[in-house]
Amino acid sequence: MTGRDGGADLFPVGNTPVVVLVRPQLADNVGAVARAMANGGLFHLRLVAPRDGWPQEKAWRNSSGADRLLDAATVHETVADAVADLHRVFATCPRPRHIVKPVLTARGAAAELREICGRGLRAGLLFGPERAGLDNDDMACADALVRYPLNPAFMSLNLAQAVMVMAYEWWTAADQTVPKTLMTNETQVATKGRLENFLAHLVDQLDASGFLRNAPKRPGMIRNIRHLFERGEVTEQELRTLHGVVTELAIGRRQRGRLEKDAE
Amino acid sequence: MTGRDGGADLFPVGNTPVVVLVRPQLADNVGAVARAMANGGLFHLRLVAPRDGWPQEKAWRNSSGADRLLDAATVHETVADAVADLHRVFATCPRPRHIVKPVLTARGAAAELREICGRGLRAGLLFGPERAGLDNDDMACADALVRYPLNPAFMSLNLAQAVMVMAYEWWTAADQTVPKTLMTNETQVATKGRLENFLAHLVDQLDASGFLRNAPKRPGMIRNIRHLFERGEVTEQELRTLHGVVTELAIGRRQRGRLEKDAE
Repeated sequence: MTGRDGGADLFPVGNTPVVVLVRPQLADNVGAVARAMANGGLFHLRLVAPRDGWPQEKAWRNSSGADRLLDAATVHETVADAVADLHRVFATCPRPRHIVKPVLTARGAAAELREICGRGLRAGLLFGPERAGLDNDDMACADALVRYPLNPAFMSLNLAQAVMVMAYEWWTAADQTVPKTLMTNETQVATKGRLENFLAHLVDQLDASGFLRNAPKRPGMIRNIRHLFERGEVTEQELRTLHGVVTELAIGRRQRGRLEKDAE
Repeated sequence: MTGRDGGADLFPVGNTPVVVLVRPQLADNVGAVARAMANGGLFHLRLVAPRDGWPQEKAWRNSSGADRLLDAATVHETVADAVADLHRVFATCPRPRHIVKPVLTARGAAAELREICGRGLRAGLLFGPERAGLDNDDMACADALVRYPLNPAFMSLNLAQAVMVMAYEWWTAADQTVPKTLMTNETQVATKGRLENFLAHLVDQLDASGFLRNAPKRPGMIRNIRHLFERGEVTEQELRTLHGVVTELAIGRRQRGRLEKDAE
């Protein structure tokens, strides 16, 4: 995935929000931000007055191959300049401020960004400097604030982590993966009929072994065994294995029976 | 929030999943993981065979005050040992494997973890080593795999980022924050009646100024202005400001009119 020279083959797919890092301090963090952006399918990175100047080799070294994002990043003197060609701008802001502004959760913001970008408008996300966050003038350039629901007892979020959460929400806002599935690879989930077939085989052998000889308890015992096997999706391959296990155990028992008889 | 000596005042709140780092390589990453866990309200950290031994000062230095989690972390020789007292274990696994196992999204996993923990069972989340990820024996200890929906063109996820996504989803699975709200602080959203009152004031002054003198166009022009002000939630404080703006502009015009008349 992540190549060696020049990093991974990344390019912008569709209309995606611009990430604007306002006065970032550490080039390491800019690299980690690029990596998180790539994870979530974002591409466009703008830097406003990076403290140590730009470019910085450290950023490339810390991006795990998201080089193309860093190669394409632009530098701006002010937030106003960085957002001048955008139509809608959201500012991430962990702390409450005394301003009148819509506040979105990360998920709410991702849904709105999908809608805005889907209309062909250009959107941006502002992230503040590592220590202080965005100041009031920065936030005055934004349409809305984004505040992540996180543990109020520990809000200190690393810059790349903050970008990761938004990039992840951006990606999942358009993702159709079902919350839970059974990965079966070459096999597939067995039908109820095939499971029934195995249970009949098992009960046959348990009858033969005498395990179910207590007639009044027999129906309940069979039901208990059935409950266990019905609880999860059993695959065809697993049923074949189970048939084999039952057969082998039964043969083993019969052979042991013969050996014991021979020994008498 | 993050204190100096001994870090932030963090402690386990309720029954939360255990994070198990399997053969972690860099102590820096263990610290960053602790920070991400604290962000999402997780507390219990277990390390299986950390490459450079344990404890490592670097972890504490890189945890931004999540010291208590690191102080309470336990070290185990094997995955089986680390999960022995747990009831349900999910393994994060970015790459497809040839095993038959339920696969959950991060959000799906968070919902199930909330349910499991809500029943009073102990749950755990396995994260593999930085480079290789979990091996097949590790995954055989898990009930299900967790695979995040992320950009397939760039799946390389930092260990702390992987934990961040799960911790964030764990937190948001129980979070009630509305996706969007208007933060108004001391003021509040104005009623339609008060907005109407302002619009009447504005139209009065626009009539007086002659701006609406084209009678056939007048209703349409008023409607356009109305559309603009009805589009967002206007606060009472903003309405007071707008009343002032209209009054002052009108006074300015009248005074200018007088000055012009005086000058004649």
